[in-house]
Amino acid sequence: MTEQDTTKIVEALGRRARTAAARLASLRPAVKNRALLAMADRFEASASEIIAANERDLGSGRDKGLSAAMLDRLRLDAKRIGAMADAMRQVARLDDPVGEIYDMRTRPNGIRVGRMRTPFGVIGIIYESRPNVTADAGALCVKSGNAVILRGGSEAIHSNTILARLMDEAGAEAGLPEHSVQLVPTTDRAAVSAMLGMSGVIDLIIPRGGRSLIEMVVRESRIPVIKHYDGNCHVYVDASADLDMAEHIVMNAKCQRPGVCNAAESLLVHEAVAQQFLPRIGEKLVSAGVEIRGDAAVCALIPAAKPATDEDHRTEFLDLVISAAVVPNLDAAIAWINEYGSHHTEAIITRDHDCAMRFLAGVDSACVHVNASTRFSDGGEYGLGCEIGISTDKLHARGPMGLVELTTSKFVVLGEGQVRE
Amino acid sequence: MTEQDTTKIVEALGRRARTAAARLASLRPAVKNRALLAMADRFEASASEIIAANERDLGSGRDKGLSAAMLDRLRLDAKRIGAMADAMRQVARLDDPVGEIYDMRTRPNGIRVGRMRTPFGVIGIIYESRPNVTADAGALCVKSGNAVILRGGSEAIHSNTILARLMDEAGAEAGLPEHSVQLVPTTDRAAVSAMLGMSGVIDLIIPRGGRSLIEMVVRESRIPVIKHYDGNCHVYVDASADLDMAEHIVMNAKCQRPGVCNAAESLLVHEAVAQQFLPRIGEKLVSAGVEIRGDAAVCALIPAAKPATDEDHRTEFLDLVISAAVVPNLDAAIAWINEYGSHHTEAIITRDHDCAMRFLAGVDSACVHVNASTRFSDGGEYGLGCEIGISTDKLHARGPMGLVELTTSKFVVLGEGQVRE
Repeated sequence: MTEQDTTKIVEALGRRARTAAARLASLRPAVKNRALLAMADRFEASASEIIAANERDLGSGRDKGLSAAMLDRLRLDAKRIGAMADAMRQVARLDDPVGEIYDMRTRPNGIRVGRMRTPFGVIGIIYESRPNVTADAGALCVKSGNAVILRGGSEAIHSNTILARLMDEAGAEAGLPEHSVQLVPTTDRAAVSAMLGMSGVIDLIIPRGGRSLIEMVVRESRIPVIKHYDGNCHVYVDASADLDMAEHIVMNAKCQRPGVCNAAESLLVHEAVAQQFLPRIGEKLVSAGVEIRGDAAVCALIPAAKPATDEDHRTEFLDLVISAAVVPNLDAAIAWINEYGSHHTEAIITRDHDCAMRFLAGVDSACVHVNASTRFSDGGEYGLGCEIGISTDKLHARGPMGLVELTTSKFVVLGEGQVRE
Repeated sequence: MTEQDTTKIVEALGRRARTAAARLASLRPAVKNRALLAMADRFEASASEIIAANERDLGSGRDKGLSAAMLDRLRLDAKRIGAMADAMRQVARLDDPVGEIYDMRTRPNGIRVGRMRTPFGVIGIIYESRPNVTADAGALCVKSGNAVILRGGSEAIHSNTILARLMDEAGAEAGLPEHSVQLVPTTDRAAVSAMLGMSGVIDLIIPRGGRSLIEMVVRESRIPVIKHYDGNCHVYVDASADLDMAEHIVMNAKCQRPGVCNAAESLLVHEAVAQQFLPRIGEKLVSAGVEIRGDAAVCALIPAAKPATDEDHRTEFLDLVISAAVVPNLDAAIAWINEYGSHHTEAIITRDHDCAMRFLAGVDSACVHVNASTRFSDGGEYGLGCEIGISTDKLHARGPMGLVELTTSKFVVLGEGQVRE
């Protein structure tokens, strides 16, 4: 296919999405929820068809030499299809953010001024490998009243194609506008470029995947992008910390699920408690199989620790590895985190109220925790009900993003004929 | 100066701004307010120095053949300096948004999750001609805890230079970090490009000026931009409108101050009331000196109306001109506004509750009014206390932007040692 053909295809998706979006914006919650439940049922009813499509992706994946782990992420079976359907049913049960009016105030002249949550319009999701993103992101966009254009990776093209088609068909039968959920049918690189140039048609781009994908999207996009890169999360153990609590939180933040973005990658310890805390946490970490890369002070107190490079302190290991350093005071800890961190999630362990407040104000990250594991920075754990992703940007959404973050707002004014004097 | 020199100068401003921002973020409100009052006093104490610098700008303006209107916008006298100082004192009196914690909820495991408003860090303002933007934008950025890099137009360089210097000096003497307020000392075009490339140093760019300036900023920026282009605002007179109210609001929206972005530029009338309403509003508009450009139905009912081109319906006249059309129903009015409008501010005049609600939900604009003049879409009128600008974007801020919109948020979590199971 020529680049021009690809562009034409993507532009046609855009036009259809805008038409769908105009109707989706004012659909009743009950209609959207019914559609989501219909999509979930359709997934389960079409399980064998989905599995057959998925087999084709797995076949080409094996031919291309994908790793066992990659193939496993790609695989759909009856259980995983059921889980996708259940996730959709859960989205159907969430409160609908669209149309909510908040911050209403009455002005001296009697006009009432508030803000109403409204859909963005058309959202583009650009993602890699796992086909469940198709179901997940599609459901969250529809629930928040947005049409969605999905662009998945080539490894999952057959799986994504059938999932998107089933969602759009079942949705339309249940009252959703046609083309509310569309998948880009080609995996050409040119399709991504075409999407990213469609300012005025697509309102928001959310990339989900590795750093190189996200960097490419940020570089090329003429449309606002919400994203996050790494999660180099820190736990800082303050001079006044309860050291039992500190141990408990460090072990949880590092070891409970080391491969995710809110796992701790860096440990900072106040010098006043370094001698007491580092040997005991060192022993615990080492017995849990964690490799420690520390500065000189850490290495002096933890025999098993290796010297850390500057790069180690900046790294998201996503593995049983932790960097560690001793800092002279709270300000040094804050400065360290702002310099070496990735502005994702950081925790302080302290009994000192003033230190807790200074840490909250001073750390320039999306999520800042006092006496709680970094692992809590997640839409579900925060009580948002769901999560479309995490933003380490500062515009619009920062931290875990739920349904509300898939909406924008407009000012609404209710008057009785007032004019400006 | 070579482009490289300019880039170096701007990068140095960026480094100083970041250092200032780190301290500004946790300054007490009282310190910031004292600094703003000191700036205001300094302006008044240095009035003759300011006027002398302004004279140089006026001189070059006259040499360059600036229009009388442009020269007037540029002019600073004792009265205008006093007004700038008073505006700063007003900013000092506003509530400080920084540090506010909102949306706090307790999760089943006992962690308390909320959001805290925090400054962006460094904000870049790129603007044209009027030197009072220097004072205004500078004060709002400081109040919201942000360091600011100002880049004004070449016509006002001497005025802007002294205003920024006085603000930074008086602020620093009152406890603000040095370099909280900086002006780019060169008017090279390269300075703007350098600013727009400083992603990671400048957190947010706000352009204020004409369309070509804003388009250039959007095209070049690697940093998030909040902006608005035109205000092609509509008043839609519904079938059920109180026609006295409609007349009152149309006249206010069009004529009270035609040169501003929230003045009405387009009138839509439901066909059921066209015969009754158009002749009378036509007469009123014409006697107020307004030129009417209408579709065939309008021209048939208003003898003085000229035929409108498609372009007329899309135009922000900023003058005593209005485009007008008759529509068959509410849906057509909404579709018209979303197609021809600029997503700024629209008003419906109606007595029908259902029509009012459908208009609020269906119109894709930053501000949607029921039975109130479009002229109210303004930070002050909405009760935001001030206005740094208006956004017709959907990300982060939409509509008039006050102090809160100059902040971002972080999630804060308060625990007692909780870990993730």
